Amino acid sequence: MKAITVVPLKAGSASLEEVAEPAPGEGDVLVETIAVGVCGTDAEIVSGDYGWAPPGRERLVLGHESLGRVVEAPQGSGLAVGDHVVCIVRRPDPVPCYACAAGQWDNCRNGQYTEHGIKSLDGFMRERYRTPADALVKVDAALGLCGVLLEPTTIVAKAWDDVDEIGNRAVWRPEKVLVTGAGPVGLLAALLARQRGLEVHVLDHLEGGAKSRLVERLGATYHTGSVADAVAAPDVILEGTGVPQLVVDAMRSVGSGGVVALLGVGSVGSQLGVDVGSLNRDMVLSNKAVVGSVNANRSHYQSAVTALNAADRDWLAALITRKLPLDRFSEALQHGPDDVKTVMQLSEP
Amino acid sequence: MKAITVVPLKAGSASLEEVAEPAPGEGDVLVETIAVGVCGTDAEIVSGDYGWAPPGRERLVLGHESLGRVVEAPQGSGLAVGDHVVCIVRRPDPVPCYACAAGQWDNCRNGQYTEHGIKSLDGFMRERYRTPADALVKVDAALGLCGVLLEPTTIVAKAWDDVDEIGNRAVWRPEKVLVTGAGPVGLLAALLARQRGLEVHVLDHLEGGAKSRLVERLGATYHTGSVADAVAAPDVILEGTGVPQLVVDAMRSVGSGGVVALLGVGSVGSQLGVDVGSLNRDMVLSNKAVVGSVNANRSHYQSAVTALNAADRDWLAALITRKLPLDRFSEALQHGPDDVKTVMQLSEP
Repeated sequence: MKAITVVPLKAGSASLEEVAEPAPGEGDVLVETIAVGVCGTDAEIVSGDYGWAPPGRERLVLGHESLGRVVEAPQGSGLAVGDHVVCIVRRPDPVPCYACAAGQWDNCRNGQYTEHGIKSLDGFMRERYRTPADALVKVDAALGLCGVLLEPTTIVAKAWDDVDEIGNRAVWRPEKVLVTGAGPVGLLAALLARQRGLEVHVLDHLEGGAKSRLVERLGATYHTGSVADAVAAPDVILEGTGVPQLVVDAMRSVGSGGVVALLGVGSVGSQLGVDVGSLNRDMVLSNKAVVGSVNANRSHYQSAVTALNAADRDWLAALITRKLPLDRFSEALQHGPDDVKTVMQLSEP
Repeated sequence: MKAITVVPLKAGSASLEEVAEPAPGEGDVLVETIAVGVCGTDAEIVSGDYGWAPPGRERLVLGHESLGRVVEAPQGSGLAVGDHVVCIVRRPDPVPCYACAAGQWDNCRNGQYTEHGIKSLDGFMRERYRTPADALVKVDAALGLCGVLLEPTTIVAKAWDDVDEIGNRAVWRPEKVLVTGAGPVGLLAALLARQRGLEVHVLDHLEGGAKSRLVERLGATYHTGSVADAVAAPDVILEGTGVPQLVVDAMRSVGSGGVVALLGVGSVGSQLGVDVGSLNRDMVLSNKAVVGSVNANRSHYQSAVTALNAADRDWLAALITRKLPLDRFSEALQHGPDDVKTVMQLSEP
């Protein structure tokens, strides 16, 4: 079968290849891939900056944002042929740490987790895969191709969980949210914020265009310019870009008792001049909190299912701005200003 | 009666003055001051960098870390003549925000709180004060002068509460703690960490001396040098200095899923070159959290009472390294390397 594979840490090694059919030992459930979303982590892996091949192998099958259809499932698995499913990206350690053992592999304490398409497990840019039933999450087939948005939605579901837990260390009534970056994660973070009834502002560097219209269709406000000018003292900032200046500005601009959730990973290695003393003083005197948030566990997949089911289908569909077959993968990482989510589409939903 | 007063925002204006006896309208309970601790906030106010006089007044009575003895208390107040008491520093707004209304004035959302000796309310460097009974916390008279350590202990009790709430957003089993700065807050933070059974490391810049002995008497380990060299990947860092490089190093060095609590306020206005992209990436991929923590509410005063009662009395007494009468206040801010806590002593405990 066909697959997009890459030699991790080797730039430009991504290619369309013939790979073996999934081995029965990989799991009881056989899934036919419908679509796989392409994200910044894939771009990092393709650039040779990140990624681990499975043990004893040179090449890794790319892709972690999956949507598939069950082809074979054992009795009692809770899955039936034809079900639409998403595979949980991170798997606990073989000898699990206490967080992995508790099903919280997103907070793995020893770094021994694996991740489909990223770390030591093949991803989903292939026609079929096998997995144990407990790695799969059912999504409503009525979502169609939009089911491929589940995995990025889990990322923001986890971030919102973190924000809630941290904000609620004291009595807290958040009203205003700022999201930085109108990419898929930013737009989905804004969706979940609107579903909570919050006043939502989204900051991006592009004037007008498709992203601003997507923000406005949510009932949120689109801004360009600086963090400080977008909205005064928001209770929550979801920082989705990883851009150093935005990260610092978010910490400065969040309101008293507010929470900044960091979701983006950007470029490293450049120095920014920061008045850390002033930033620290402000964080102390205003009880501000900042939290980095990565990955998601099953509970976040369930929250994300609820969020997608409650969302406007047309709005979700508009997030998928390009659909490419596997043999056009080389185009997938070319990102236009109005592109939100590019998906590799392998079969009809 | 005598008092140390200051004109806020006017450097060098602190002086010993005669002030009026407390007016009956200030509260039902009359308290005779035993001692008042001197801290970095007092130094900032004396330097003209901080502070607010009471409305309509030029001068503020300094001092917020109090220990006193009840002289008059109404029936039904829960207080009796002779009780040792500490006055809660922060008072809710006259028209309270939702946090102040819930008794969580330490997380006041609108900044309209007042603080004895700091913001719009006289402090305790005076022979007597009056206050409503609900602003007082009883401490065991057997603590003697060590009762004056209650207020700084409330600061670390709140910080530990924040750390617990934030760390426990996921399953969490902290083992190792690093405290930066072996001042009063750092040493009391280390005390509470040891009372929790944690492995505790304290970092300061001084080689040897009284502070290192105080750390060792707690069963903790004293370090000089860098944050990274003190202990690998601590689960918690309590940053007590506000020194910019230490703040950044704490964020970098805390372990996966760890929490940095910022407690110190230091100098502002200088730029530090920081690889924010790398710091952000690490915070995201390792689920790290940072929280600023200031002040304390009644629940933290109660936790601090419990902590002081459980502590070794000789160790607590050794934290009070200088006792000065009010007329020697000018010496109080001269800080020697072995000084931990200087107190102004007004009467015998």
